[in-house]
Amino acid sequence: MDVRLYELVLNQGRSVSPFVWRARMALAHKGLTPERIGIGYGGKHVIAFSGQDRVPVLVDGETAVSDSWRIACHLEETYPDRPSLFGGDGGRALARLVNHWCDSQQLSALFLLCTPATYALTPEADQPYFRQSRFDWTGMSIEQMAEAGSVKKLRAAIEPLRLTLRERDFLSGDAPAYADYCAFGGFMWARMTVGGLLDPADPVEAWRQRMLDLFGGLARAEPCAEAD
Amino acid sequence: MDVRLYELVLNQGRSVSPFVWRARMALAHKGLTPERIGIGYGGKHVIAFSGQDRVPVLVDGETAVSDSWRIACHLEETYPDRPSLFGGDGGRALARLVNHWCDSQQLSALFLLCTPATYALTPEADQPYFRQSRFDWTGMSIEQMAEAGSVKKLRAAIEPLRLTLRERDFLSGDAPAYADYCAFGGFMWARMTVGGLLDPADPVEAWRQRMLDLFGGLARAEPCAEAD
Repeated sequence: MDVRLYELVLNQGRSVSPFVWRARMALAHKGLTPERIGIGYGGKHVIAFSGQDRVPVLVDGETAVSDSWRIACHLEETYPDRPSLFGGDGGRALARLVNHWCDSQQLSALFLLCTPATYALTPEADQPYFRQSRFDWTGMSIEQMAEAGSVKKLRAAIEPLRLTLRERDFLSGDAPAYADYCAFGGFMWARMTVGGLLDPADPVEAWRQRMLDLFGGLARAEPCAEAD
Repeated sequence: MDVRLYELVLNQGRSVSPFVWRARMALAHKGLTPERIGIGYGGKHVIAFSGQDRVPVLVDGETAVSDSWRIACHLEETYPDRPSLFGGDGGRALARLVNHWCDSQQLSALFLLCTPATYALTPEADQPYFRQSRFDWTGMSIEQMAEAGSVKKLRAAIEPLRLTLRERDFLSGDAPAYADYCAFGGFMWARMTVGGLLDPADPVEAWRQRMLDLFGGLARAEPCAEAD
């Protein structure tokens, strides 16, 4: 079976997209090993076949799927006999809420912290695009973001994860599932660009280490900004 | 079957506790109509049999259960043939994460907004206790909280609910379940003390109205601070 995943890959082979990491972990959860195709910010024409211009894009046989949430749903529906990403209808519904929490709270706290280092890893030819597009979103320059980023705010924002992970090993219960991959994606953006950002004594950090070990250390093995 | 629920009830019959509201809605979801017993801050001796001093306390036959999450789990386990509060194991696991999100993000944004009006609804004899205990938690006086409360911060904090409710009617999917009751509890605290706090055009407000209509308008029927 032809399974391909299109990723954003920057200098030093850094796969920085939190959304791509959600998809990579979800594919591994379903026992799938995609052919990985890295593109830069200037490579959007490569994924034009998907009808939009953002990674991840999954090609699964004849089907192209973009958007990490739609990819997760595609995998759950296409491979129902493999381990579930959601654990039932209730889990699927609330995984979507967790997805939105990650997008609006976790990633926004990470944005100011990770964007300057992401810029530094961007090939020179794509830097003007990167700088302008981030300014258009936020009204801030890369240098202003570097000033404004706050590890303290990030650590406060992830209190719901901390309270949950004090009680058990994974957000989804005794074993990881899509909600874990969703939140983990954000921390992989940090790992690829600036490092772990968490206190070693934080239960969220212990969980992050468990996540790095999953699937034979799939995420741990990638070139990153963190020494461990 | 003897089913009793101990609640916090203040002046004008206001049932202000968000945790009690979680339990009331969960009981209604399971088709149970408890005898309701209201106590004030000075009535903690009444629930001493439960081995702790906080409401809600559910007495279900021979069993006493405190803590809204434990009450939900008790109901799910004791009445498995009635509509599920969680929608499977995955849903139960993530409902706990949503519970922690409500406690740490939603309720902390509501705390400064609702506490002064809760104080005003507290019988005079209990006001010194109320004032001192809130100062011990926060280092703030009631008057300082009234200054610091921000509707704007509350509305920003609930963005994950908003993004989810743009896509569907309830947090738990097409029908409400425990995650909905959990988040709704916070808004009932607001309704009992200061009013709705949401923009009429907010999808979260449309959902709150749907929640008020559930179970024959159970929540809407209660004496409150909101005209509707």
